[in-house]
Amino acid sequence: MVRVVIIGGGAAGASAAARARRLDPNAEIVMVEAGSMITHAPCGIPYAVSGVVADYKSLMTYTPEEFEKERNIKVLINAKAVDVDPDKRTVTVVRGGRSETLQWDKLIVATGAKPLVPKIPGVDLPGILTVRLPDDVPLLKSELADASTVGIVGGGYIGVEMAEALLHLGKKVILFEMMDRLLPAALDADMSSVLAEEMKKRGVDLHLGEKVVEFRGFGGKVSAVVTEKGEYKVDKVILAVGVKPDADLALKAGAKLGETGAVAVNEYMETGAPDVYAAGDVAEKVHRVTGRKVWIPLAPSANKEGQVAGGNAVKGRVLRFPGVVGTAVTKFFDLYVARTGLSEEEAQKLGIKYDKAVIKARTKAQYYPGYAPVHVKMLADQSGRILGVQVLGWDHIVAAYADIAAVAVERGATIEDLFFADIGYMPATAPVWHPLIVAARVLSRGKL
Amino acid sequence: MVRVVIIGGGAAGASAAARARRLDPNAEIVMVEAGSMITHAPCGIPYAVSGVVADYKSLMTYTPEEFEKERNIKVLINAKAVDVDPDKRTVTVVRGGRSETLQWDKLIVATGAKPLVPKIPGVDLPGILTVRLPDDVPLLKSELADASTVGIVGGGYIGVEMAEALLHLGKKVILFEMMDRLLPAALDADMSSVLAEEMKKRGVDLHLGEKVVEFRGFGGKVSAVVTEKGEYKVDKVILAVGVKPDADLALKAGAKLGETGAVAVNEYMETGAPDVYAAGDVAEKVHRVTGRKVWIPLAPSANKEGQVAGGNAVKGRVLRFPGVVGTAVTKFFDLYVARTGLSEEEAQKLGIKYDKAVIKARTKAQYYPGYAPVHVKMLADQSGRILGVQVLGWDHIVAAYADIAAVAVERGATIEDLFFADIGYMPATAPVWHPLIVAARVLSRGKL
Repeated sequence: MVRVVIIGGGAAGASAAARARRLDPNAEIVMVEAGSMITHAPCGIPYAVSGVVADYKSLMTYTPEEFEKERNIKVLINAKAVDVDPDKRTVTVVRGGRSETLQWDKLIVATGAKPLVPKIPGVDLPGILTVRLPDDVPLLKSELADASTVGIVGGGYIGVEMAEALLHLGKKVILFEMMDRLLPAALDADMSSVLAEEMKKRGVDLHLGEKVVEFRGFGGKVSAVVTEKGEYKVDKVILAVGVKPDADLALKAGAKLGETGAVAVNEYMETGAPDVYAAGDVAEKVHRVTGRKVWIPLAPSANKEGQVAGGNAVKGRVLRFPGVVGTAVTKFFDLYVARTGLSEEEAQKLGIKYDKAVIKARTKAQYYPGYAPVHVKMLADQSGRILGVQVLGWDHIVAAYADIAAVAVERGATIEDLFFADIGYMPATAPVWHPLIVAARVLSRGKL
Repeated sequence: MVRVVIIGGGAAGASAAARARRLDPNAEIVMVEAGSMITHAPCGIPYAVSGVVADYKSLMTYTPEEFEKERNIKVLINAKAVDVDPDKRTVTVVRGGRSETLQWDKLIVATGAKPLVPKIPGVDLPGILTVRLPDDVPLLKSELADASTVGIVGGGYIGVEMAEALLHLGKKVILFEMMDRLLPAALDADMSSVLAEEMKKRGVDLHLGEKVVEFRGFGGKVSAVVTEKGEYKVDKVILAVGVKPDADLALKAGAKLGETGAVAVNEYMETGAPDVYAAGDVAEKVHRVTGRKVWIPLAPSANKEGQVAGGNAVKGRVLRFPGVVGTAVTKFFDLYVARTGLSEEEAQKLGIKYDKAVIKARTKAQYYPGYAPVHVKMLADQSGRILGVQVLGWDHIVAAYADIAAVAVERGATIEDLFFADIGYMPATAPVWHPLIVAARVLSRGKL
């Protein structure tokens, strides 16, 4: 009877546990979770903070009890894995002040990512908050309750989504992003500016290209954000400058970091350390366009990586994770932002020659009421292969445009392939020339 | 200077004209349209009848004057092409009671489809209406104005969409479909029943598996629909039993009908008759899953076929139309129905062995407000290749699920490919396990 220990009860860990159980009814499976919730959805935190989602506990798909009962997986919550011994094949877990040792034949490290905390003066002041787990929601809500001005440091996904949440709560929001644009890892400047305009329109005091250099306090709490350009009074700060892999335990287990700084794994989610797997935000992935290692920590791939790791842990190389193409979605109020593949900046960094098209279109037939504007940017390489797509539009259907493009990108479609793709039409759902097809046509430079 | 005559000013004809002009600034291009509108959108008719679209003239993208002025294409409207002489290379056109002869070097037949009118007693009675062109909207509106009960004969796209329009106008609607289900060419019985339930819930008096055998009149107008099972009093009838290719002129030009009854064309949209092309609803297409000829008359492929025909007419085999996978979308109020690839019935008819999964899921994270239920059916062949997907859900985003699946189907994706597709996620746009990925997982029968 194989003993599987999984460190982490989030997307990757829980998927790994469920898959291992499915493939091996006899395995002894223990899942160790540092917080109180498993199968939790950190992506829902901004909506639980804003109150759009009434109960933060609904961000948990299964309770630990359900998981134990329905899947016969032992779940240790509020249990901090503090050490791994790869020779003795043990994990040391501290729970309720007591330490215990778990024995494993297969170890799956699914410890996720944690917020980056930049080393700048005052960063440890009370009132500076980070966003990581649904467990954090009650604290975030109570900390923010009496704040009237909140500074957000970082214009990535969390920064943008928390800005919506805070406006929703009636706060004044000042957002600082060191780079020249919002969502710098996802969008090029031209597309990002559409989001910036929307944020300004909704009242966000946006400071792009402005580096935070210090936090100042008053009465023992944060009271101001200081940048290269000025000082801004705030009541609270959301620190959302990025995340990093929470790789300590993986390293203790004998895994290595890859070139991206996340745990190196092969397509079986094996770390190279005997019988040690890593999955989810802690692990590197392969980018299917470039074949290179990337670190893009997102829930959908975490789930699938967990599934691969869990299956392989009990059955040995039954599944392979093929990698990602960098599909990601966010929204700011009614503006949906989605992307897949490579951005212009990414292509440039890799020295890939590309051509691009940027169009503005509509989400429905021009005569049908309720259409929304949509901006589409599409990149292709010199052979015509689609490299990436960025989409922004005031209708949630545009999130799916990135999905259509993602399938095209990961399956090597060319501009011509996408132009001739049999995308559906009726006036209430799309224009007869779908925005993606129009973008492909423009990108063809007169060939289509 | 090449002389191009295009018969038909709809999707295919207008695209052909625009493309020919783009590739050959010097060509003499004449487009002959029987009605008063070009670049018109018949798919918008139900919404113009219901009043959702206020002005039926907005169903026209370009006016004939705009087309003439901006593209230098001669447009003859209200001009009926009545004959083609393939030896003399002429088209005879009747306009305003006068006949004229156009000379062509290249002929593009884009005459579209026309409603089938079954040969049953009383079918010629006044008050029995068909739906074909935006030009028909004023007549449809005035004919329907004083009707309180309308019989719809046919449960295809037009029947379903007109049912919505008529309910919108406060009419009582009785819908008759000979087959055992709605949208029989698009959906299998299990998925179609979801639509049937919705139609009944909205008040449609639905008669499935009930063949209309006669129309009876009173005072010289239709007053009853007679089926095998009963007689139903109606004030008007919408006859929507299907369409057929309007192929007479193509045949006169020397084209042949293919096995489907539509005009046979190759991938260049050549009919085989010298310098005669056909495009759009009049022409057959290749189904990219089966490689067989099909006749699926829809606007998106008509546009692209027109573009291929127009380009090739002036430049010779510069473009190829790769065919379709049968993607189609409709809606009934808030229930969106989309499909791509093969249905179970289609697979059975072709003797293709398949496996299937039918799931019910949600369009957003389970904790995010405003999610809608969605039903997904997915078919794969014995090698695991995805054959087709049917989707019904109460959110227009599900239309795009069929698009995602369409790209997967036409690019030969397997169940595993789709499971690992990098489809995006955020709680407001999709669940973390996207319904298509869940369907693929279920279809894998435990492998994923």
